[in-house]
Amino acid sequence: MHALKVNTAGGSYPILVGRGLIDRADAFVSLLPGRQVLVVTNDVVAPLYLDRVLASLADLEPATLVLPDGERHKTLETFSRIIDALVDAGFHRDACVLALGGGVVGDLSGFAAACFHRGIACIQVPTSLLAQVDSSVGGKTAVNHVAGKNLVGAFHQPVGVVADVTTLETLPEREFLAGLAEVLKYGIGLDEEFFEWLENNLQALLDREPLAVERAVIWSCAIKARVVAEDEREQGRRALLNLGHTFGHAIETHAGYGSDWLHGEAVAVGMAMAALMAEELGTIDADTCRRIRALIEAAGLPAHPPAMSTDRWMELMGRDKKVAAGRIRLVLPTGIGSSALSAGYDDAALARTIARTAPNDD
Amino acid sequence: MHALKVNTAGGSYPILVGRGLIDRADAFVSLLPGRQVLVVTNDVVAPLYLDRVLASLADLEPATLVLPDGERHKTLETFSRIIDALVDAGFHRDACVLALGGGVVGDLSGFAAACFHRGIACIQVPTSLLAQVDSSVGGKTAVNHVAGKNLVGAFHQPVGVVADVTTLETLPEREFLAGLAEVLKYGIGLDEEFFEWLENNLQALLDREPLAVERAVIWSCAIKARVVAEDEREQGRRALLNLGHTFGHAIETHAGYGSDWLHGEAVAVGMAMAALMAEELGTIDADTCRRIRALIEAAGLPAHPPAMSTDRWMELMGRDKKVAAGRIRLVLPTGIGSSALSAGYDDAALARTIARTAPNDD
Repeated sequence: MHALKVNTAGGSYPILVGRGLIDRADAFVSLLPGRQVLVVTNDVVAPLYLDRVLASLADLEPATLVLPDGERHKTLETFSRIIDALVDAGFHRDACVLALGGGVVGDLSGFAAACFHRGIACIQVPTSLLAQVDSSVGGKTAVNHVAGKNLVGAFHQPVGVVADVTTLETLPEREFLAGLAEVLKYGIGLDEEFFEWLENNLQALLDREPLAVERAVIWSCAIKARVVAEDEREQGRRALLNLGHTFGHAIETHAGYGSDWLHGEAVAVGMAMAALMAEELGTIDADTCRRIRALIEAAGLPAHPPAMSTDRWMELMGRDKKVAAGRIRLVLPTGIGSSALSAGYDDAALARTIARTAPNDD
Repeated sequence: MHALKVNTAGGSYPILVGRGLIDRADAFVSLLPGRQVLVVTNDVVAPLYLDRVLASLADLEPATLVLPDGERHKTLETFSRIIDALVDAGFHRDACVLALGGGVVGDLSGFAAACFHRGIACIQVPTSLLAQVDSSVGGKTAVNHVAGKNLVGAFHQPVGVVADVTTLETLPEREFLAGLAEVLKYGIGLDEEFFEWLENNLQALLDREPLAVERAVIWSCAIKARVVAEDEREQGRRALLNLGHTFGHAIETHAGYGSDWLHGEAVAVGMAMAALMAEELGTIDADTCRRIRALIEAAGLPAHPPAMSTDRWMELMGRDKKVAAGRIRLVLPTGIGSSALSAGYDDAALARTIARTAPNDD
């Protein structure tokens, strides 16, 4: 078991990464503030791992809520169901929500924990690669609104993250790849050494070799923990974790929540577009752009968006949270393993980027 | 115009108290992060003050949302309407919610500001006495749940509070008195000098003499600002601001939200019961108890709860947020102008307190 620490304004909390952690009562007990635990999961994860987690919590008072699986359930209505479950269990301020599942379960459970009695403890037990390397760490919680993803939420740090990498063995291939997009993000935007490691170990990751996967999760979490410690509320450097996300959110919103795009896939396209845009603006050279795009494509991830007009792109990107004073700001690579938030750019460069990635360009 | 400062972990913000402030553009402009402002108010306050506030914001891009008046609308559904209004206005992260109204408008607007894009700015413009001296200051925001008041919410400090005491002139008598209960709370629980000032100036307050009212608002805000600065997240001393509230919440929940009890009235009864309970436990003497109860009654506030069985009291108080590890803790006076959170007590003392305040004891 590998333990990382996330330092935040309110104190620090551990990220435990290892194999077989969900069967270890000691991994959970040290994190719990009291005896009351609500395990929130979904109907895909529950048959696989719920009983094992409940066995580890057997000495406590666990209650359980099984939600329907899927991003379309990441709504205020489902949030409200978690609150009701906490009330029905008779839980108080010292209760804890344990989120067992992927990013949707984690975001919903974290937001419910943030709001119940204005904030109770939350333990994240991510079972998807996306959740293990990204959404479970850092305290961002949210639900979607018809007008945009994660539009309603809170910053609420968990009391701990327990990432059991063996749970990734049951992950469908496509979801594993979508999670890998966020892993690549750390290399592309923040860590040249990790980028090179990814170039050299991509096949082992695609084969889900246990040691490679564990290494990638630990490395990703370490980078994220460092960035979050520097900028918990995303007023500066943390925005770099959104590399590819402004383009990606536009794709997801355009496609609609019932669509066939996974978040990581949209982010992969977004990163590929961000690289092109940076090349258009001259902040990276053609070879750097090519290396970034090659890594994304070698991972089997999409690099081209669906057909969307330039006007539609501009409209949807204008809704993004990173818009300050009505101006679109983008996270763009500035080299291998480095990136920056752009202060602005001419719309023509964006239009050229969109044209270069159009589906008929494929 | 009197300016107080609230120091919090995230920085400090001003409380401006004075007469005619809502007509002063300068009072608002210095607080706003950008040009986008959503003014949230209700259908009782809007005809009185909305046009004047909008005139002060004329150089900006104000949008408006008028909610139905009443505590029963302090729900997740109404919260969702505010989010929709922010989306419909095309507002972003640098937008601001301006809450014009009493505690319900302030709590709802503050919670929506806390959650929209995980936190945007909020200016509180309280128009009730309760909101000016209590709910607008300190960053507590929430909505009600059928299982309890303020069960879902967030700590989210406003960027400023603009308390125009002339808006209290239009307040119905009963609401003014209910707000006065929270003013008394500061004297009873936290400041002996203020308690004595209240004993000596109660009639001037009841007559709403402008200087007395302004003085009481400033003094109350100063006490609250000090307590919040010491303990923003209510992990210690801030709990003392809940004097009378555990009893009071039980009354409100028992009566139901459509009931005839105002929050301040329930708190007044709660403080009278807390004094009796402290006397039962021997932490204050009979004379101190009498002085506290006499001040509450002289203000024309109720001191007796509705008919409720002891079992019902225990059940409802067990749901309160101040319950730690299943144990009821109460804020009780320890003298004039001082109070403490009790570690515990025998149920017999609670039963005797309830018996002594039963309606047929009146």
